[in-house]
Amino acid sequence: MGTATATAPWKQLLLNALESNSHLKHSSYLQLATIGSNGRPSNRTVVFRGFEENSDKIQIHTDRRSRKIEELRHCPFAEICWYFTDSWEQFRINGRVEVIDEMNPDSLKREQREKAWFSCSMRSRLQYLGPSPGVPRLNEDFPAEASVDPSTGPVGAFCLLVLEPDQVDYLNLKSNQRLEFTFTRTAGKEKCWTSERINP
Amino acid sequence: MGTATATAPWKQLLLNALESNSHLKHSSYLQLATIGSNGRPSNRTVVFRGFEENSDKIQIHTDRRSRKIEELRHCPFAEICWYFTDSWEQFRINGRVEVIDEMNPDSLKREQREKAWFSCSMRSRLQYLGPSPGVPRLNEDFPAEASVDPSTGPVGAFCLLVLEPDQVDYLNLKSNQRLEFTFTRTAGKEKCWTSERINP
Repeated sequence: MGTATATAPWKQLLLNALESNSHLKHSSYLQLATIGSNGRPSNRTVVFRGFEENSDKIQIHTDRRSRKIEELRHCPFAEICWYFTDSWEQFRINGRVEVIDEMNPDSLKREQREKAWFSCSMRSRLQYLGPSPGVPRLNEDFPAEASVDPSTGPVGAFCLLVLEPDQVDYLNLKSNQRLEFTFTRTAGKEKCWTSERINP
Repeated sequence: MGTATATAPWKQLLLNALESNSHLKHSSYLQLATIGSNGRPSNRTVVFRGFEENSDKIQIHTDRRSRKIEELRHCPFAEICWYFTDSWEQFRINGRVEVIDEMNPDSLKREQREKAWFSCSMRSRLQYLGPSPGVPRLNEDFPAEASVDPSTGPVGAFCLLVLEPDQVDYLNLKSNQRLEFTFTRTAGKEKCWTSERINP
Protein backbone atom coordinates (compact mmCIF):
# COMPACT_ATOMS: atom_id res chain seq x y z
CA MET A 1 0.00 0.00 0.00
CA GLY A 2 2.46 2.63 1.25
CA THR A 3 5.68 3.89 -0.19
CA ALA A 4 8.78 4.89 1.76
CA THR A 5 11.15 7.78 1.03
CA ALA A 6 13.90 9.59 2.91
CA THR A 7 12.85 13.10 1.86
CA ALA A 8 9.53 14.45 3.09
CA PRO A 9 7.07 13.65 0.29
CA TRP A 10 4.47 16.13 1.61
CA LYS A 11 6.84 19.09 1.43
CA GLN A 12 6.39 19.48 -2.32
CA LEU A 13 2.60 19.36 -1.90
CA LEU A 14 2.87 22.16 0.67
CA LEU A 15 5.18 24.24 -1.53
CA ASN A 16 2.70 23.81 -4.40
CA ALA A 17 -0.19 24.92 -2.18
CA LEU A 18 1.78 27.98 -1.03
CA GLU A 19 2.51 28.83 -4.65
CA SER A 20 -1.06 28.40 -5.91
CA ASN A 21 -2.48 30.45 -3.02
CA SER A 22 0.27 33.07 -2.90
CA HIS A 23 -2.05 35.81 -4.21
CA LEU A 24 -3.85 35.62 -0.83
CA LYS A 25 -2.18 37.43 2.08
CA HIS A 26 -3.64 34.91 4.51
CA SER A 27 -2.16 31.89 2.70
CA SER A 28 0.78 31.99 5.12
CA TYR A 29 -1.54 31.96 8.17
CA LEU A 30 -2.00 28.66 9.93
CA GLN A 31 -3.56 27.47 13.17
CA LEU A 32 -1.23 26.07 15.81
CA ALA A 33 -2.76 23.87 18.50
CA THR A 34 -0.95 23.18 21.75
CA ILE A 35 -1.95 21.90 25.16
CA GLY A 36 -2.75 24.57 27.72
CA SER A 37 -1.35 24.55 31.24
CA ASN A 38 -4.86 23.61 32.43
CA GLY A 39 -4.78 20.50 30.20
CA ARG A 40 -7.24 21.94 27.68
CA PRO A 41 -6.50 22.48 24.01
CA SER A 42 -5.22 25.88 22.98
CA ASN A 43 -5.37 27.13 19.37
CA ARG A 44 -4.30 30.32 17.59
CA THR A 45 -3.35 31.73 14.22
CA VAL A 46 0.35 32.19 13.53
CA VAL A 47 2.41 33.04 10.45
CA PHE A 48 4.52 30.53 8.51
CA ARG A 49 8.10 31.86 8.39
CA GLY A 50 9.52 29.30 5.98
CA PHE A 51 11.29 26.00 6.36
CA GLU A 52 14.54 25.66 8.21
CA GLU A 53 17.33 25.54 5.63
CA ASN A 54 17.56 22.18 3.82
CA SER A 55 14.94 20.57 6.01
CA ASP A 56 11.21 20.06 6.42
CA LYS A 57 11.10 21.81 9.80
CA ILE A 58 8.63 24.68 10.03
CA GLN A 59 9.62 28.07 11.47
CA ILE A 60 7.31 30.37 13.41
CA HIS A 61 8.09 33.59 15.28
CA THR A 62 6.56 34.40 18.61
CA ASP A 63 6.84 36.52 21.73
CA ARG A 64 8.50 34.81 24.69
CA ARG A 65 5.88 36.40 26.93
CA SER A 66 2.97 34.76 25.06
CA ARG A 67 1.11 31.88 26.65
CA LYS A 68 2.17 29.33 24.02
CA ILE A 69 5.77 29.43 25.24
CA GLU A 70 4.76 28.29 28.71
CA GLU A 71 2.47 25.67 27.11
CA LEU A 72 5.22 24.31 24.88
CA ARG A 73 7.66 24.05 27.78
CA HIS A 74 5.04 21.94 29.53
CA CYS A 75 4.12 19.81 26.48
CA PRO A 76 6.33 20.28 23.40
CA PHE A 77 3.89 18.74 20.90
CA ALA A 78 1.74 20.75 18.53
CA GLU A 79 -0.54 20.24 15.55
CA ILE A 80 -0.74 22.73 12.75
CA CYS A 81 -3.97 22.93 10.78
CA TRP A 82 -3.40 24.84 7.57
CA TYR A 83 -6.28 25.32 5.21
CA PHE A 84 -5.69 26.87 1.80
CA THR A 85 -8.85 28.75 0.87
CA ASP A 86 -8.27 28.92 -2.87
CA SER A 87 -7.02 25.40 -3.63
CA TRP A 88 -9.19 23.75 -0.94
CA GLU A 89 -6.28 21.81 0.54
CA GLN A 90 -5.74 21.08 4.23
CA PHE A 91 -2.48 20.07 5.90
CA ARG A 92 -2.53 18.76 9.45
CA ILE A 93 1.08 18.68 10.61
CA ASN A 94 1.90 17.08 13.93
CA GLY A 95 5.28 17.23 15.60
CA ARG A 96 7.52 18.43 18.36
CA VAL A 97 8.32 22.12 18.75
CA GLU A 98 11.65 23.49 19.83
CA VAL A 99 11.66 26.94 21.42
CA ILE A 100 14.80 28.88 20.52
CA ASP A 101 15.39 31.96 22.64
CA GLU A 102 18.47 33.98 23.52
CA MET A 103 19.40 31.51 26.28
CA ASN A 104 19.80 28.61 23.86
CA PRO A 105 23.12 26.88 24.56
CA ASP A 106 23.65 25.96 20.89
CA SER A 107 25.41 28.79 19.04
CA LEU A 108 24.11 27.56 15.66
CA LYS A 109 20.57 27.86 16.96
CA ARG A 110 21.22 31.33 18.35
CA GLU A 111 22.48 32.24 14.88
CA GLN A 112 19.34 30.81 13.32
CA ARG A 113 17.27 33.00 15.67
CA GLU A 114 19.33 36.04 14.73
CA LYS A 115 18.80 35.34 11.04
CA ALA A 116 15.06 35.00 11.68
CA TRP A 117 15.04 38.38 13.45
CA PHE A 118 16.73 40.16 10.55
CA SER A 119 14.25 38.57 8.12
CA CYS A 120 11.41 40.45 9.93
CA SER A 121 10.04 43.78 8.82
CA MET A 122 10.79 46.72 11.11
CA ARG A 123 7.10 46.81 11.98
CA SER A 124 7.22 43.18 13.14
CA ARG A 125 10.35 43.79 15.20
CA LEU A 126 8.68 46.70 16.99
CA GLN A 127 5.92 44.41 18.29
CA TYR A 128 8.40 42.66 20.54
CA LEU A 129 9.09 45.97 22.29
CA GLY A 130 5.39 46.46 23.11
CA PRO A 131 3.58 45.52 26.30
CA SER A 132 3.21 41.84 27.32
CA PRO A 133 0.65 40.11 25.09
CA GLY A 134 -2.45 38.68 26.76
CA VAL A 135 -2.30 40.64 29.99
CA PRO A 136 -4.76 43.39 30.94
CA ARG A 137 -4.15 46.63 29.11
CA LEU A 138 -2.98 49.19 31.63
CA ASN A 139 -2.66 52.50 29.85
CA GLU A 140 -4.67 53.49 26.81
CA ASP A 141 -1.71 55.19 25.22
CA PHE A 142 1.31 52.97 25.18
CA PRO A 143 4.24 55.08 24.04
CA ALA A 144 4.45 54.72 20.28
CA GLU A 145 7.92 56.28 20.25
CA ALA A 146 9.64 52.94 20.82
CA SER A 147 12.09 52.39 18.01
CA VAL A 148 14.50 49.69 17.00
CA ASP A 149 17.82 50.14 15.26
CA PRO A 150 17.75 48.13 11.98
CA SER A 151 21.23 46.77 12.67
CA THR A 152 20.52 45.64 16.26
CA GLY A 153 20.04 41.93 16.87
CA PRO A 154 16.99 40.20 18.37
CA VAL A 155 15.41 41.62 21.52
CA GLY A 156 14.90 39.30 24.50
CA ALA A 157 11.21 38.74 23.79
CA PHE A 158 11.86 37.37 20.29
CA CYS A 159 11.53 33.59 20.05
CA LEU A 160 11.91 31.24 17.14
CA LEU A 161 9.75 28.11 17.16
CA VAL A 162 10.84 25.17 15.05
CA LEU A 163 8.32 22.39 14.50
CA GLU A 164 9.74 19.04 13.40
CA PRO A 165 6.89 17.16 11.69
CA ASP A 166 6.45 13.44 12.23
CA GLN A 167 2.92 13.03 10.88
CA VAL A 168 1.14 14.89 8.09
CA ASP A 169 -2.47 14.42 7.05
CA TYR A 170 -3.16 15.94 3.63
CA LEU A 171 -6.70 16.46 2.35
CA ASN A 172 -7.64 17.82 -1.05
CA LEU A 173 -11.31 18.81 -1.12
CA LYS A 174 -11.33 19.31 -4.90
CA SER A 175 -10.12 15.80 -5.79
CA ASN A 176 -11.49 14.35 -2.52
CA GLN A 177 -8.15 12.64 -1.88
CA ARG A 178 -6.56 12.20 1.50
CA LEU A 179 -3.03 11.03 2.23
CA GLU A 180 -1.36 10.22 5.50
CA PHE A 181 2.40 10.65 5.80
CA THR A 182 4.22 9.10 8.74
CA PHE A 183 7.81 9.54 9.76
CA THR A 184 9.47 6.42 11.11
CA ARG A 185 12.88 5.03 11.77
CA THR A 186 13.81 1.73 10.21
CA ALA A 187 15.45 -1.03 12.25
CA GLY A 188 18.78 0.29 10.91
CA LYS A 189 17.94 3.70 12.50
CA GLU A 190 17.46 5.29 9.10
CA LYS A 191 14.71 7.90 8.95
CA CYS A 192 12.00 7.49 6.37
CA TRP A 193 8.56 8.75 5.46
CA THR A 194 5.79 6.35 4.52
CA SER A 195 2.58 7.45 2.85
CA GLU A 196 -0.81 5.87 2.54
CA ARG A 197 -4.06 6.83 0.89
CA ILE A 198 -6.86 7.01 3.46
CA ASN A 199 -10.59 7.70 3.25
CA PRO A 200 -11.48 11.41 3.28
CA MET B 1 -11.84 47.27 34.38
CA GLY B 2 -14.22 44.57 33.26
CA THR B 3 -17.95 44.59 32.74
CA ALA B 4 -20.36 41.76 33.52
CA THR B 5 -23.42 40.68 31.51
CA ALA B 6 -25.71 37.66 31.44
CA THR B 7 -25.87 37.38 27.64
CA ALA B 8 -22.71 36.46 25.76
CA PRO B 9 -21.20 39.80 24.74
CA TRP B 10 -18.92 38.20 22.12
CA LYS B 11 -21.82 36.63 20.21
CA GLN B 12 -22.73 39.88 18.48
CA LEU B 13 -19.08 40.38 17.48
CA LEU B 14 -19.10 36.92 15.94
CA LEU B 15 -22.41 37.49 14.13
CA ASN B 16 -20.98 40.76 12.75
CA ALA B 17 -17.84 38.97 11.54
CA LEU B 18 -19.95 36.25 9.87
CA GLU B 19 -22.00 38.95 8.16
CA SER B 20 -19.05 41.02 6.95
CA ASN B 21 -17.22 37.93 5.62
CA SER B 22 -20.30 36.13 4.24
CA HIS B 23 -19.20 36.65 0.61
CA LEU B 24 -16.40 34.15 1.31
CA LYS B 25 -17.36 30.48 1.23
CA HIS B 26 -14.67 29.68 3.77
CA SER B 27 -15.96 32.20 6.33
CA SER B 28 -17.88 29.38 8.02
CA TYR B 29 -14.75 27.21 8.28
CA LEU B 30 -13.00 27.11 11.63
CA GLN B 31 -10.23 25.07 13.25
CA LEU B 32 -11.20 22.81 16.12
CA ALA B 33 -8.42 21.65 18.44
CA THR B 34 -8.86 18.67 20.72
CA ILE B 35 -6.52 16.41 22.65
CA GLY B 36 -5.53 13.23 20.86
CA SER B 37 -5.63 9.82 22.51
CA ASN B 38 -1.83 9.94 22.58
CA GLY B 39 -1.96 13.15 24.61
CA ARG B 40 -0.84 15.32 21.71
CA PRO B 41 -2.86 18.18 20.26
CA SER B 42 -5.14 17.42 17.32
CA ASN B 43 -6.44 20.13 14.98
CA ARG B 44 -8.72 20.15 11.93
CA THR B 45 -11.02 22.34 9.89
CA VAL B 46 -14.77 21.94 10.47
CA VAL B 47 -17.85 23.87 9.39
CA PHE B 48 -19.86 26.16 11.67
CA ARG B 49 -23.48 24.93 11.64
CA GLY B 50 -25.03 27.79 13.58
CA PHE B 51 -25.79 28.44 17.20
CA GLU B 52 -28.09 26.22 19.17
CA GLU B 53 -31.48 27.95 19.37
CA ASN B 54 -31.55 30.87 21.82
CA SER B 55 -28.05 30.17 23.10
CA ASP B 56 -24.40 30.84 22.44
CA LYS B 57 -23.56 27.16 21.98
CA ILE B 58 -21.85 26.32 18.71
CA GLN B 59 -23.03 23.43 16.51
CA ILE B 60 -20.76 21.27 14.35
CA HIS B 61 -21.58 18.12 12.37
CA THR B 62 -19.25 15.17 12.25
CA ASP B 63 -18.94 11.48 11.51
CA ARG B 64 -19.11 9.21 14.55
CA ARG B 65 -16.31 7.15 13.02
CA SER B 66 -13.91 10.11 12.88
CA ARG B 67 -11.03 10.31 15.32
CA LYS B 68 -12.31 13.44 17.07
CA ILE B 69 -15.24 11.52 18.58
CA GLU B 70 -12.91 9.17 20.40
CA GLU B 71 -10.77 12.14 21.42
CA LEU B 72 -13.73 14.09 22.81
CA ARG B 73 -14.93 11.10 24.78
CA HIS B 74 -11.51 11.00 26.36
CA CYS B 75 -11.21 14.77 26.94
CA PRO B 76 -14.35 16.83 26.24
CA PHE B 77 -12.60 20.20 25.97
CA ALA B 78 -11.84 21.93 22.70
CA GLU B 79 -10.64 25.28 21.42
CA ILE B 80 -11.93 26.79 18.22
CA CYS B 81 -9.65 29.14 16.34
CA TRP B 82 -11.66 31.08 13.76
CA TYR B 83 -9.90 33.61 11.61
CA PHE B 84 -11.91 35.85 9.30
CA THR B 85 -9.72 36.58 6.31
CA ASP B 86 -11.54 39.70 5.11
CA SER B 87 -12.16 41.54 8.38
CA TRP B 88 -8.92 40.33 10.02
CA GLU B 89 -10.67 39.17 13.17
CA GLN B 90 -9.79 36.09 15.22
CA PHE B 91 -12.00 34.32 17.74
CA ARG B 92 -10.49 31.72 20.04
CA ILE B 93 -13.39 29.94 21.69
CA ASN B 94 -12.71 27.48 24.49
CA GLY B 95 -15.29 25.20 26.01
CA ARG B 96 -16.70 21.77 26.61
CA VAL B 97 -18.13 19.73 23.75
CA GLU B 98 -21.12 17.47 23.99
CA VAL B 99 -21.36 14.64 21.46
CA ILE B 100 -24.97 13.94 20.49
CA ASP B 101 -25.47 10.66 18.66
CA GLU B 102 -28.46 8.37 18.19
CA MET B 103 -27.86 6.75 21.57
CA ASN B 104 -28.39 10.00 23.48
CA PRO B 105 -30.84 9.36 26.34
CA ASP B 106 -32.33 12.87 26.12
CA SER B 107 -35.18 12.95 23.58
CA LEU B 108 -34.84 16.75 23.13
CA LYS B 109 -31.21 16.25 22.13
CA ARG B 110 -32.11 13.43 19.73
CA GLU B 111 -34.63 15.85 18.19
CA GLN B 112 -31.94 18.51 17.91
CA ARG B 113 -29.74 16.00 16.07
CA GLU B 114 -32.61 15.12 13.74
CA LYS B 115 -33.19 18.78 12.97
CA ALA B 116 -29.48 19.18 12.24
CA TRP B 117 -29.62 16.22 9.83
CA PHE B 118 -32.51 17.68 7.85
CA SER B 119 -30.68 21.03 7.65
CA CYS B 120 -27.90 19.29 5.66
CA SER B 121 -27.74 19.19 1.88
CA MET B 122 -28.32 15.78 0.28
CA ARG B 123 -24.64 15.80 -0.73
CA SER B 124 -23.57 16.24 2.91
CA ARG B 125 -25.91 13.48 4.08
CA LEU B 126 -24.43 11.06 1.53
CA GLN B 127 -20.96 11.46 3.08
CA TYR B 128 -22.12 9.64 6.19
CA LEU B 129 -22.86 6.58 4.07
CA GLY B 130 -19.33 6.48 2.67
CA PRO B 131 -16.40 4.45 3.97
CA SER B 132 -14.93 5.14 7.43
CA PRO B 133 -12.93 8.38 7.38
CA GLY B 134 -9.21 8.19 8.18
CA VAL B 135 -8.72 4.48 7.56
CA PRO B 136 -6.76 3.07 4.63
CA ARG B 137 -8.63 3.22 1.35
CA LEU B 138 -9.43 -0.31 0.30
CA ASN B 139 -11.01 -0.18 -3.13
CA GLU B 140 -10.38 2.55 -5.64
CA ASP B 141 -14.00 2.63 -6.70
CA PHE B 142 -16.29 2.88 -3.75
CA PRO B 143 -19.84 2.36 -5.01
CA ALA B 144 -21.18 5.81 -5.84
CA GLU B 145 -24.70 4.42 -6.12
CA ALA B 146 -25.38 4.89 -2.41
CA SER B 147 -28.44 7.05 -2.04
CA VAL B 148 -30.39 8.55 0.80
CA ASP B 149 -34.13 9.16 0.96
CA PRO B 150 -34.71 12.90 1.61
CA SER B 151 -37.37 12.08 4.21
CA THR B 152 -35.29 9.54 6.15
CA GLY B 153 -33.84 10.64 9.48
CA PRO B 154 -30.18 10.69 10.49
CA VAL B 155 -28.00 7.67 9.76
CA GLY B 156 -26.04 6.11 12.60
CA ALA B 157 -22.76 7.78 11.66
CA PHE B 158 -24.21 11.28 11.93
CA CYS B 159 -23.16 13.14 15.08
CA LEU B 160 -23.96 16.59 16.32
CA LEU B 161 -21.28 18.34 18.38
CA VAL B 162 -22.33 21.19 20.66
CA LEU B 163 -19.59 23.37 22.10
CA GLU B 164 -20.51 25.43 25.16
CA PRO B 165 -18.06 28.35 25.32
CA ASP B 166 -16.65 29.49 28.63
CA GLN B 167 -13.76 31.63 27.39
CA VAL B 168 -13.46 33.73 24.25
CA ASP B 169 -10.38 35.63 23.12
CA TYR B 170 -11.21 38.18 20.43
CA LEU B 171 -8.51 39.87 18.36
CA ASN B 172 -9.07 42.54 15.73
CA LEU B 173 -5.95 42.98 13.62
CA LYS B 174 -7.28 46.12 11.93
CA SER B 175 -7.91 48.08 15.13
CA ASN B 176 -5.23 46.11 17.04
CA GLN B 177 -7.73 45.52 19.87
CA ARG B 178 -7.97 42.35 21.90
CA LEU B 179 -10.71 41.41 24.34
CA GLU B 180 -11.00 38.47 26.68
CA PHE B 181 -14.45 37.22 27.65
CA THR B 182 -14.79 34.85 30.59
CA PHE B 183 -17.86 32.97 31.72
CA THR B 184 -18.23 32.69 35.48
CA ARG B 185 -20.86 31.93 38.04
CA THR B 186 -21.49 34.46 40.75
CA ALA B 187 -21.73 33.43 44.39
CA GLY B 188 -25.51 33.34 43.88
CA LYS B 189 -24.96 30.71 41.13
CA GLU B 190 -25.99 33.16 38.44
CA LYS B 191 -24.10 32.84 35.18
CA CYS B 192 -22.37 35.88 33.82
CA TRP B 193 -19.79 36.94 31.26
CA THR B 194 -17.03 39.37 32.14
CA SER B 195 -14.88 41.10 29.56
CA GLU B 196 -11.53 42.77 29.74
CA ARG B 197 -9.30 44.55 27.28
CA ILE B 198 -5.91 42.83 27.04
CA ASN B 199 -2.73 43.56 25.13
CA PRO B 200 -2.69 42.17 21.56
